[in-house]
Amino acid sequence: MHILITGASGMLGRKVVDRLMRDGLGGHEVSALTLVDVVVPEAPAGFPGRLDAFSADLSASGIAQQLIDGRPDVIFHLAAIVSGEAEADFEKGYRINLDSTRDLFDAIRHAHAADGYHPRVVFASSIAVMGAPLPYPIPDAFHTTPLTSYGTQKAICELLLADYSRHGFFDGIGIRLPTICIRPGTPNKAASGFFSNILREPLVGKPAILPVPDSIRHWHTSPRSAVGFMVHAATMDLGKLGPHRNLSMPGLSATVGEQIEALRRVAGESAVALIRREPDATITRMCEGWAPGFEAARARALGFTAEDSFDQIIRAHIEDELEAPR
Amino acid sequence: MHILITGASGMLGRKVVDRLMRDGLGGHEVSALTLVDVVVPEAPAGFPGRLDAFSADLSASGIAQQLIDGRPDVIFHLAAIVSGEAEADFEKGYRINLDSTRDLFDAIRHAHAADGYHPRVVFASSIAVMGAPLPYPIPDAFHTTPLTSYGTQKAICELLLADYSRHGFFDGIGIRLPTICIRPGTPNKAASGFFSNILREPLVGKPAILPVPDSIRHWHTSPRSAVGFMVHAATMDLGKLGPHRNLSMPGLSATVGEQIEALRRVAGESAVALIRREPDATITRMCEGWAPGFEAARARALGFTAEDSFDQIIRAHIEDELEAPR
Ligand SMILES: NC(=O)c1ccc[n+]([C@@H]2O[C@H](COP(=O)([O-])OP(=O)(O)OC[C@H]3O[C@@H](n4cnc5c(N)ncnc54)[C@H](O)[C@@H]3O)[C@@H](O)[C@H]2O)c1
Ligand SMILES: NC(=O)c1ccc[n+]([C@@H]2O[C@H](COP(=O)([O-])OP(=O)(O)OC[C@H]3O[C@@H](n4cnc5c(N)ncnc54)[C@H](O)[C@@H]3O)[C@@H](O)[C@H]2O)c1
Repeated sequence: MHILITGASGMLGRKVVDRLMRDGLGGHEVSALTLVDVVVPEAPAGFPGRLDAFSADLSASGIAQQLIDGRPDVIFHLAAIVSGEAEADFEKGYRINLDSTRDLFDAIRHAHAADGYHPRVVFASSIAVMGAPLPYPIPDAFHTTPLTSYGTQKAICELLLADYSRHGFFDGIGIRLPTICIRPGTPNKAASGFFSNILREPLVGKPAILPVPDSIRHWHTSPRSAVGFMVHAATMDLGKLGPHRNLSMPGLSATVGEQIEALRRVAGESAVALIRREPDATITRMCEGWAPGFEAARARALGFTAEDSFDQIIRAHIEDELEAPR
Repeated sequence: MHILITGASGMLGRKVVDRLMRDGLGGHEVSALTLVDVVVPEAPAGFPGRLDAFSADLSASGIAQQLIDGRPDVIFHLAAIVSGEAEADFEKGYRINLDSTRDLFDAIRHAHAADGYHPRVVFASSIAVMGAPLPYPIPDAFHTTPLTSYGTQKAICELLLADYSRHGFFDGIGIRLPTICIRPGTPNKAASGFFSNILREPLVGKPAILPVPDSIRHWHTSPRSAVGFMVHAATMDLGKLGPHRNLSMPGLSATVGEQIEALRRVAGESAVALIRREPDATITRMCEGWAPGFEAARARALGFTAEDSFDQIIRAHIEDELEAPR
């Protein structure tokens, strides 16, 4: 089985590679792996198959075509620039998050016309396709009215994915990822970064800043569950999906206060004491517009699963990042 | 006031022109009118202002730029190819219904960057952005899961319109038009054509074919109301809209049986006798997936109005097309 991952050097991309190396995919061994990212992707240690890992800008002319020339069986399309960057650089956001997706889909369409090529395409969408005012929980049939260019680009890619799948050009599924928490690595500048920072940093004895009130409610899942979504999406029978190809994933709805209580239970009072409250009105206002939680009834019925408590999310982080770092 | 209409030779475009000639727009006289369509637009009789009516393919390179060079104050963007054609010719549908809209929006964006240009943009969207299974009535916050490429293209344009408006590039509003009934002219090949044919043809003593059962329920508005939506959209205060720029319009939910009863009341038994039932399983199946009706609560609250009965829709047709044809 030949697998292509775009955005392979990203947080999720690297974890998907690790999982594929460990487990294969749906009972198949991975015989060929194509990894592409603007940042040169790491070669997975000891991979016996055919590896093609290279740095390229997916939005550059000809790259999508080149990737599809290899006729991968499964494509994880994860490359994207993040919300803040897409908002600040309007043209770059549309070029990378929208146009390169359409280029990729069109390259598949042309290959389909040429020889019947029909891969599985798993697209990493986002809860940012939703925009305030939002009910809680958000039902599966809620409208997509994004309030960022990033969310707009993801929502458009979802529509393209559904239409191209309906025409039979490929077998696509869009996965609306919750905010991934605890995001490993170092604190980044994303406005949502604090959701991870206030757990990840105290767990290793470092301070973290909390810019919002404890009452802020948001929708989370662990990196481990996110990888699980990707694998399930790549292997499940999509016949059950019908023409509605984009799914809000299960996750955990929790307030910041509940996150902190879980930290207290798992790591004790000393960890909690490392959280410093520095209220930021701008970040608080942004958070108030974010998704508090989803029903995700369809995804659950289709076998997607996530954590039930923040204790589990914190323990997953400890197991995957602190006890067995890659 | 300078007004630009794309798709100006179409059914709706011609009626918008007539209305502007009669009433002006929002208390302003129309001093300049730019009309563009692949079919050469008719010059409105006796228009004293500056007229630029020409034939062009909006998707051709440079056309959008050229249209925006004139800095129209209000843009009615109505050009589109219909559902059947967009489904049969995938690339043409995306090129005309999506890419020319984006070209137009980007031309405005560049003009905005150059000199602060900030026109009102009224976009003709469609209830085809919705796809089965559909509740009845469909709430305003229902998801857009189109089941045609045409509906996909309209849904994508809606997302672009909202994002470009949010960034302040223009002041946009998307109008999800119900099926327009009674569509004047001659019977066309659209699968939905019979909704109009079974009224329009008998009203002038001609036979019409009904391919679906009387129980089929659908969502209608008259051409007169559709023009009213366009004018209201062009003149209302969009501050009330917030970032949700796309509105399902009010209309009339009626079964085919109810349409026929209205015809009986307005035109008598002899008109009804001209309807010939020729059941078509394919058309019936398509119809069953179409929107039965909308709440349209937001649009009504914002002052959009439509007919309350099919008798009114039929009388509007008699007044506008049979008694006072243009
Ligand atoms: N992490 C989350 O909380 C979250 C939530 C919702 C959706 N998502 C989506 O999931 C996907 C993966 O997320 P992640 O957290 O791993 O993000 P990430 O930023 O860590 O990874 C994205 C990768 O895409 C690469 N990339 C960017 N532009 C590219 C281009 N033009 N060509 C090739 N590669 C390019 C980046 O270099 C990066 O390695 C993204 O599409 C993201 O939008 C993530
Ligand atoms: N009539 C309806 O029931 C209905 C319902 C929902 C939405 N709409 C939308 O409302 C708008 C107007 O509808 P209508 O009934 O007047 O349609 P129409 O087909 O009568 O008019 C559309 C016009 O666009 C023109 N056009 C097509 N491609 C073009 C191109 N590349 N460049 C320039 N012009 C081009 C056509 O020549 C035509 O004159 C369309 O966008 C349509 O999708 C109509």
